[in-house]
Amino acid sequence: MHLLEQRIREEGVVKKGNVLKVDSFLNHRIDIRLLDAIGEEFHRLFSDAGVTKIVTIEASGISVAVMAARYFDVPVVFAKKSKTAQLDSDVYSARIHSFTHNNDYTAIISRKYLSSEDTVLVIDDFLANGEAVRGLREILREAGATLAGVGIVIEKGFQGGGDRLRAEGVHVESLALVDSMNAETGEISFR
Amino acid sequence: MHLLEQRIREEGVVKKGNVLKVDSFLNHRIDIRLLDAIGEEFHRLFSDAGVTKIVTIEASGISVAVMAARYFDVPVVFAKKSKTAQLDSDVYSARIHSFTHNNDYTAIISRKYLSSEDTVLVIDDFLANGEAVRGLREILREAGATLAGVGIVIEKGFQGGGDRLRAEGVHVESLALVDSMNAETGEISFR
Repeated sequence: MHLLEQRIREEGVVKKGNVLKVDSFLNHRIDIRLLDAIGEEFHRLFSDAGVTKIVTIEASGISVAVMAARYFDVPVVFAKKSKTAQLDSDVYSARIHSFTHNNDYTAIISRKYLSSEDTVLVIDDFLANGEAVRGLREILREAGATLAGVGIVIEKGFQGGGDRLRAEGVHVESLALVDSMNAETGEISFR
Repeated sequence: MHLLEQRIREEGVVKKGNVLKVDSFLNHRIDIRLLDAIGEEFHRLFSDAGVTKIVTIEASGISVAVMAARYFDVPVVFAKKSKTAQLDSDVYSARIHSFTHNNDYTAIISRKYLSSEDTVLVIDDFLANGEAVRGLREILREAGATLAGVGIVIEKGFQGGGDRLRAEGVHVESLALVDSMNAETGEISFR
């Protein structure tokens, strides 16, 4: 998505530790026209996938998920994060490691809101190592739901998560795929 | 907003400690048509207020804020939550007490994304004691921004936060205003 790559190039800030900050249009201030275009683009890419539900994880995936959901006219279910492992029988859960914060959390979805009837598009703002998507797939498997695909706003390709999913046959669409970035020069290149 | 009151009546779950759970359409599973109608209604209510920016706090306010922002065609800025007080000179911040979680956090907005040029509509999913709105107003004052009004999806009127704001002359619009609710019978009545 050219418009998005341009914004990342102009406003993205590369920090040490493979961090790409896009606070000016996605993760603190949200450019609503860009977000709407992102939602529309996900719909274009997955319009034939029979999507019945969009699943994401709080918090930063929610804005993208709801904007896409408008175009699909399907509900969003966002996994909640908990620090502690959940033994509650009313929920599906998966343990996820955050490389950004170097900690573990449990993603939780109520059994009421996900079932084997669902064909799910997983949406998130970033994909790096793919830990969040791995956890959500674990939850989908537990629910017996079908994975239609994974829609990502910004994939950090050099961290390998997206390619591992593609190698497993998952339909991954990233609207911007960063191939390399340099914290010293600030340079960002796209695949 | 009749549609919303009806959903709260049918699906809202009253828990001890003044908790109203609306996980089936707002805070875990999101009914996208209802959310879109909510966004449109906020626009109708504040269309003459000269809104240049919508401000909310992560995480649960974000979905409502972006949906409203589409109708206003203005950016969203969401305050980030931090456990620790921030001394960073690049940010506006306010200390906020959460009655729900019985802890304190700091709401933070980068100085880059809020200024005296802004006329701000504050949006949130719930209003109870009004602590979050109080904190955001503190940040707006620090930034010299104008408060256009406060748009709330569900106000728990019996906790007084909304009426305190109205008494101070703030334009508060709550799409559903719960006057009382009973954790034992599950009954909910609206103003």
